[in-house]
Amino acid sequence: MSFFDQTYDVIVVGGGHAGCEAAAAAANTGSSTLLVTMNLQNIAQMSCNPAMGGIAKGQIVREIDAMGGYSGIVSDRTAIQFKMLNKSKGPAMWSPRVQSDRMRFAEEWRLMLENTPNLDFYQEMVNGLLVIGDRVTGVRTSLGIEIKAKSVILTNGTFLNGLIHIGDKQFGGGRAGERNSTGITEQLINLGFDSGRMKTGTPPRVDGRSLDFSKMIEQPGDENPQKFSFSNVTKSLTNQRSCQMSYTSPEVHDLLREGFDRSPMFNGRIQSTGPRYCPSIEDKINRFADKDRHQLFVEPEGWNTIEYYVNGFSTSLPEEVQFKALRQVAGFENVKFFRPGYAIEYDYFPPTQLRHTLETKLVSGLYFAGQINGTTGYEEAASQGLVAGVNASLKVQEKDPFILKRDEAYIGVLVDDLITKGTKEPYRMFTSRAEYRTLLRQDNADSRLTPLSYAIGFAGEDRMRALDKKESEAQNLVDFFNNTSITPEEANPVLAEKGTTPMKQSDKMVKIFSRPQIDLDDMLSFNEVQDYVAEHNLDTEVLEQAEIRIKYSGYIAKEKANADKLQRLENIKIPDNFDYTKLKSLSYEAREKLTKIQPTTISQASRVSGVSPSDISVMLVYMGR
Amino acid sequence: MSFFDQTYDVIVVGGGHAGCEAAAAAANTGSSTLLVTMNLQNIAQMSCNPAMGGIAKGQIVREIDAMGGYSGIVSDRTAIQFKMLNKSKGPAMWSPRVQSDRMRFAEEWRLMLENTPNLDFYQEMVNGLLVIGDRVTGVRTSLGIEIKAKSVILTNGTFLNGLIHIGDKQFGGGRAGERNSTGITEQLINLGFDSGRMKTGTPPRVDGRSLDFSKMIEQPGDENPQKFSFSNVTKSLTNQRSCQMSYTSPEVHDLLREGFDRSPMFNGRIQSTGPRYCPSIEDKINRFADKDRHQLFVEPEGWNTIEYYVNGFSTSLPEEVQFKALRQVAGFENVKFFRPGYAIEYDYFPPTQLRHTLETKLVSGLYFAGQINGTTGYEEAASQGLVAGVNASLKVQEKDPFILKRDEAYIGVLVDDLITKGTKEPYRMFTSRAEYRTLLRQDNADSRLTPLSYAIGFAGEDRMRALDKKESEAQNLVDFFNNTSITPEEANPVLAEKGTTPMKQSDKMVKIFSRPQIDLDDMLSFNEVQDYVAEHNLDTEVLEQAEIRIKYSGYIAKEKANADKLQRLENIKIPDNFDYTKLKSLSYEAREKLTKIQPTTISQASRVSGVSPSDISVMLVYMGR
Ligand SMILES: Cc1cc2nc3c(=O)[nH]c(=O)nc-3n(C[C@H](O)[C@H](O)[C@H](O)COP(=O)(O)OP(=O)(O)OC[C@H]3O[C@@H](n4cnc5c(N)ncnc54)[C@H](O)[C@@H]3O)c2cc1C
Ligand SMILES: Cc1cc2nc3c(=O)[nH]c(=O)nc-3n(C[C@H](O)[C@H](O)[C@H](O)COP(=O)(O)OP(=O)(O)OC[C@H]3O[C@@H](n4cnc5c(N)ncnc54)[C@H](O)[C@@H]3O)c2cc1C
Repeated sequence: MSFFDQTYDVIVVGGGHAGCEAAAAAANTGSSTLLVTMNLQNIAQMSCNPAMGGIAKGQIVREIDAMGGYSGIVSDRTAIQFKMLNKSKGPAMWSPRVQSDRMRFAEEWRLMLENTPNLDFYQEMVNGLLVIGDRVTGVRTSLGIEIKAKSVILTNGTFLNGLIHIGDKQFGGGRAGERNSTGITEQLINLGFDSGRMKTGTPPRVDGRSLDFSKMIEQPGDENPQKFSFSNVTKSLTNQRSCQMSYTSPEVHDLLREGFDRSPMFNGRIQSTGPRYCPSIEDKINRFADKDRHQLFVEPEGWNTIEYYVNGFSTSLPEEVQFKALRQVAGFENVKFFRPGYAIEYDYFPPTQLRHTLETKLVSGLYFAGQINGTTGYEEAASQGLVAGVNASLKVQEKDPFILKRDEAYIGVLVDDLITKGTKEPYRMFTSRAEYRTLLRQDNADSRLTPLSYAIGFAGEDRMRALDKKESEAQNLVDFFNNTSITPEEANPVLAEKGTTPMKQSDKMVKIFSRPQIDLDDMLSFNEVQDYVAEHNLDTEVLEQAEIRIKYSGYIAKEKANADKLQRLENIKIPDNFDYTKLKSLSYEAREKLTKIQPTTISQASRVSGVSPSDISVMLVYMGR
Repeated sequence: MSFFDQTYDVIVVGGGHAGCEAAAAAANTGSSTLLVTMNLQNIAQMSCNPAMGGIAKGQIVREIDAMGGYSGIVSDRTAIQFKMLNKSKGPAMWSPRVQSDRMRFAEEWRLMLENTPNLDFYQEMVNGLLVIGDRVTGVRTSLGIEIKAKSVILTNGTFLNGLIHIGDKQFGGGRAGERNSTGITEQLINLGFDSGRMKTGTPPRVDGRSLDFSKMIEQPGDENPQKFSFSNVTKSLTNQRSCQMSYTSPEVHDLLREGFDRSPMFNGRIQSTGPRYCPSIEDKINRFADKDRHQLFVEPEGWNTIEYYVNGFSTSLPEEVQFKALRQVAGFENVKFFRPGYAIEYDYFPPTQLRHTLETKLVSGLYFAGQINGTTGYEEAASQGLVAGVNASLKVQEKDPFILKRDEAYIGVLVDDLITKGTKEPYRMFTSRAEYRTLLRQDNADSRLTPLSYAIGFAGEDRMRALDKKESEAQNLVDFFNNTSITPEEANPVLAEKGTTPMKQSDKMVKIFSRPQIDLDDMLSFNEVQDYVAEHNLDTEVLEQAEIRIKYSGYIAKEKANADKLQRLENIKIPDNFDYTKLKSLSYEAREKLTKIQPTTISQASRVSGVSPSDISVMLVYMGR
């Protein structure tokens, strides 16, 4: 009997956002799973801002939830504020976002994982993999304990050889106050993997008691807050906390510039690339020299704490420069720091070394998920964890892989981008990365994904039933609008108010609902609609669903058709280990890139950078199409 | 303007139990205070068992609370089970103890500190002191930031050059999963301090889902749980979680013995001394070779978590030995580990280098509190934090020191023992250490200490009012028993049931209450008593107080007289830097020890080990008494 006398189906290394979702997904798809992490007291920490969701990221959280991941539920239960961003734009842009209570978030994750069958826990640092031939067989811990497994998912986040920078000072660490992780990178390089360095940064945390909120602009949550989870195990918030907003100024910028010569970003000490879209304040000043102010969002870290996060002021300038400059910001005249901002450099592995399942091409049974793949953000990490967890589990069970396509999910776009194009800077999701974003809405993540997840035994019965109910209620409501007439007497006052032409004679409700000037609230002002909604006890999600189907059905259908057309190429599979050297008419670059990426379909091949449409024609001809 | 542009009155280094109480005490006595700790997410961690109080320790928590410290309130608010230990013995032995929810405990501490005025926070490792001449002037952090202060309290716990041992493996750390702290010991040694090494250990944490509780003995909480805090900001538990009990066996011991040659305790790798009264399981087997079983208490780590603490199984044997042996224990046949037990060695500073205020003799304004002084236990640490925090604050304010005497508080005994006798092994409080333990009860900690604390502006008005109310209610109840008569008809059935002689004629109630066979419940069976209690709405604490005063007044008075007698010696002060070499008639040993300890009173001198009664006579003669 050895210390671990069991061979696990799946071992997940790391208890961050990726690791937590990976562990939940593997266990919930029936695999015996072990989560090994450096400190079980610190799992699911929000290393940076206390918030989940946001543009494109909120959609990802909804997708995770629709499949049965936990991020949406945890976020709902620990939210202190909810906002649907972009509500004034079309529904493809609607993006849910919450402020979170940082401590509760971590605690709720831990308790949910503890309540997950098939999932064991172990606290220690993993510093090596067990590999036989080209197959992973387990992990080795810093105590030298060997734990056997059929598959291993690495989710080390920013910890691999993590190096923290503040001004001209540097020290090892995986996150402020936590040690870094060593050994794994070196072994993977020996196994033949490419690795690189990336960097990210975080702003100072400050004492809310030292701030003057009267000089800032309040940012309250939505009046009618919604939530992430499609399931009914969470409720919307009834109570919310506000954030605040302030601005930097030319004086602030001047003070920051005084530290530029000691900035590790500018003096060459940090060579690796940071997230272009979460730039540090020094970056913003540098790149947008003409802007004389930048917004700062001042976000409470929880319901009761006095700790605040200064969103927009990420920096690795020397601490006294951070301090002097922040004291110039309105409301921050007397600010006290809990800790300064800092930057961290860490190892990542270019994700072109992975398959769509996030399994490595080099070592069978070994998966990478999260920041280790060169991404940034909790949502990006969590969704990769889910993909890796599900697929590791399915592979152990000798089932088909679970791959989301680009027209099915943002998560599909994310994975496909990573493995096909790789990334030279921390990859963050944007709506613009999705070619079918009218299809990939937050409101329909359940109808897109719950059935797929249910089919592999991940999403449960309850989620399917909830979806069926929502679908039929929404369809019935659409039918109601299609079939119910309204008179000019009733409609015209509303139409007049909204500045749209009056009706001449009675017509179906759908006709006026389809007008761009008329929204759900207008329709709800009609007695018959009110009665129908009350009688059927319909919730906001159903009403919005009907509205979207009526108002956007044209766009949606068009995009669907486009997607279907391209689907043709998606269906032409390329055999494993295809030998591109024999296709002499391919460009040299295409041959090289395709050999490296080994795309699985013609469609994926077409997305590899350096592969031209004529290269694709060559391939199609060769494959007899 | 530098990063910290303020000179604090008090800087507290370390956010463990000592540091948290120190910070609260300094801030609440009006000093501007900064708490600097390595990780603000991890403050007030329970490094070892999830429990507060217990024999002698429960009294300390009550004393801390009576003075206005936070440990009692935090413990009440985060308790999952309450027990008054030793309830069958005399009230001097009654000792409150709670099981705690580990995560909530830390969170509650943090939120209480955040709500404390005058208290700032900063996250970083301190690795040096600023010292000018023989005066401390601040601290230096690992980033090189200098923070100025009039006084500094070091509460580094087990972190100073902490080295973790499991079997024959060792690695640096301050606690499982956390890094150790370096630099401070080296600097202190350069300043002339003595330092030493101690060790302590902790048992494995296990997955409650892998345990079979049906094979264990349930250990429920008290039926009528009380609480620690004398204030009304906390309530007693209405709901509790049970612990469980199991036993080791000869088979378990045999399996453990197989690892003895790889035990760092037995093979000489750990040289430093561990806590004799919290021995590891291997120690117990070794020292009590005739015992064929030892109790194990299986304690949940919180309301909802599945993590359990195996109290009684502290060990640094190789992890697979721990595992194999524990699997032999009834109920543990399928146990899964969250993490193995381990031992930790760390630096401490022999506390004879301190004054009664816990200020160091060598460096003015520098205080040590907690495990750094060679103690063990959260309660011991917390109480020292309070003493150091209050005294640092009073000194900055140029007020008289706050010193608790041995007949006033266990905390007085603790500090006096430490600084007078020093300690060669981790010091833990016991009732036997107190010569006046009938005076130092948990029930009267408020009457002993609240007035003293109020006088220096620490305990608030509300605590004094609560004490006055309790005192007068208790005294009125005693008067009621003294003045109210009871008839034989009413009393005799109860007396008969308790096997004590019947009354012949009516007499005052106090007469029968004083009989050893009769307890409070018996008295409460009389209508008149019931009515009085109901009419005056008296709570348990008041009833118990009256009972103790009536039943134990004799013992208490006797001990008080003894204490007063000895107080005579306590009042004979020895001048600062007294030159013992000129007292030639002192024994050589006495001269040496007294020179080192520099006791402040003849009474303290008499407690220095190696000082005989005849040495004391010499001193008394010299001082003209
Ligand atoms: C300073 C900083 C600033 C950031 N700024 C931003 C930002 O501005 N915007 C943004 O979107 N994202 C930001 N992020 C990124 C965000 O925190 C991550 O994207 C997200 O946390 C990644 O999740 P993860 O699960 O991949 O890794 P992490 O959350 O880093 O979790 C890794 C986990 O693995 C554990 N672990 C690591 N190595 C081992 C090992 N060898 N053995 C056992 N356990 C191990 C760690 O203890 C930890 O629990 C920032 C992160 C940091 C640290
Ligand atoms: C493995 C283990 C087993 C134990 N077993 C027992 C037992 O069986 N029975 C028992 O009664 N007690 C036991 N204890 C002891 C108990 O945990 C301590 O007595 C108590 O926690 C001491 O409190 P403290 O405040 O002195 O230190 P700690 O609780 O150790 O807190 C120290 C704090 O200081 C911080 N810190 C340290 N150095 C620095 C620095 N340079 N800069 C900034 N911050 C710093 C740390 O981050 C931490 O927050 C055990 C402790 C450990 C670690």
